Amino acid sequence: MMILMAWKDVNTAKVHRLFYPQAPVIVTVERTARIGAMPAIWCMPLSFNPLLIGVSVAPEHETYKMILEAQAFGINWLEYSYAKQVGELGETSGRECVNKLSSVALTTIKGSKTSQPLIQEASAALECRLRERVRTGTHELIVGEIAGAYASENFGEYWDFSKYDPLFYAGTTSERVKSWVFMSCRGTVKRTSFKH
Amino acid sequence: MMILMAWKDVNTAKVHRLFYPQAPVIVTVERTARIGAMPAIWCMPLSFNPLLIGVSVAPEHETYKMILEAQAFGINWLEYSYAKQVGELGETSGRECVNKLSSVALTTIKGSKTSQPLIQEASAALECRLRERVRTGTHELIVGEIAGAYASENFGEYWDFSKYDPLFYAGTTSERVKSWVFMSCRGTVKRTSFKH
Repeated sequence: MMILMAWKDVNTAKVHRLFYPQAPVIVTVERTARIGAMPAIWCMPLSFNPLLIGVSVAPEHETYKMILEAQAFGINWLEYSYAKQVGELGETSGRECVNKLSSVALTTIKGSKTSQPLIQEASAALECRLRERVRTGTHELIVGEIAGAYASENFGEYWDFSKYDPLFYAGTTSERVKSWVFMSCRGTVKRTSFKH
Repeated sequence: MMILMAWKDVNTAKVHRLFYPQAPVIVTVERTARIGAMPAIWCMPLSFNPLLIGVSVAPEHETYKMILEAQAFGINWLEYSYAKQVGELGETSGRECVNKLSSVALTTIKGSKTSQPLIQEASAALECRLRERVRTGTHELIVGEIAGAYASENFGEYWDFSKYDPLFYAGTTSERVKSWVFMSCRGTVKRTSFKH
C-alpha cells in the first residue's frame, strides 16, 4: 500500500531553519586589546582524539577576522536567563566597541591556556586553538582543538537538567520590531526585541 | 574586583556532552538493496549557497561505508514521540539487517532527487549528494549538498512549536540496563532501555 506523504517542499532559503531549535554558543576572541563576541548556532564537536570542535562562521564577521589573527578563541554556553544578552550580541557588530562582552553587561575573564576571553556568567566554556579552516560556500568551518574545558557544578557525568536550563534559538520575527525567539527545554519561550 | 570562578575542569572524554541536549537526525542510505540508518547529533548547516550541511561520522559505522558507495544520503528529523525508535537505531548495527528502518517499524520512502531512502514518519527530511569529506581525528565530516528538502505542515516560515515537538538527546545512563535519555522542549524526559 502506498502511503501519501504529508510533506511539502521547503524553500532553499529556509532549510537551515529545519535544524531549529539549536543551542547557541558565544564565540569569544581578543585581539589587540579588543574583545569580540558573537552567537553561533552552527557549532558541534568533530573528533574525540584529538579533541576538536567546529564552528561555521561567515567571513564577513569581525569575530572571524579576529580569530584568524589571534589563532585561538573561546566557546561559551549561556543559559536561558541570558537570552537578552545573546540576542544583543547577535545584533551588534564588534566594530562598534572595544569590549563587546562588557557592552552587554557580561564579565570577561581570561582563559589560562590561551589567554583568550571567556564569559564569567557562562555555564560552560572551552578554550580552543585554531587548527584548521575549511571553506564551505558562504561560510568557513573553523576547526578548534580544545586546550581547556570548564563547567559549573551543574555538570557532572552529564548536565543536571534539573539545574542547568539551556538556551535554544528558534528563529527571528520581524513584525513592527525585530525579535529573536528563544526557547528553554521547560516549555517556556522568550522574545528579545530590537529597534533599528 | 576579582570574581572567583565557580567552574571546574571538564575531563576531555566528556567535553562533547557540554553540547547536550542536541537534536539527533537520522542519516539514511541505500546501497545494493540494503537500507542503513543511524542517529547522528553532530550535524549542522555549513553554507547557504551552495546549500550545504555537514554530518560528522565515525568511519567504522556501516552507514558511513554505505554513504561512500552511494555518494548520497538522507537526513531525517523524528519527533519526540519516536524516541524509542531513535534509540533502537543507535543500538543496532546496519550489518544485522537488510532494512534497518523496517526493523524498528519505520516506513521507507524513496527520495525523488537521489533515490535515497527517507523516513515517512519524519517531520522533515533532506536529500543530500556527497560533495566533500574532511577527515577530523576520530571522525570524518561528510559534507552534503541539498538536492531536496521536505517538511510537514508544521513548518512554515519557521517551525510551529505548538505543533512540532522536537526530540533532544541528553545522554546515556548505564545502571542495570543501558538507557538513552531524551528530552523534549516541553519539560518532559523519556528513557529508552536496552538489554545486551
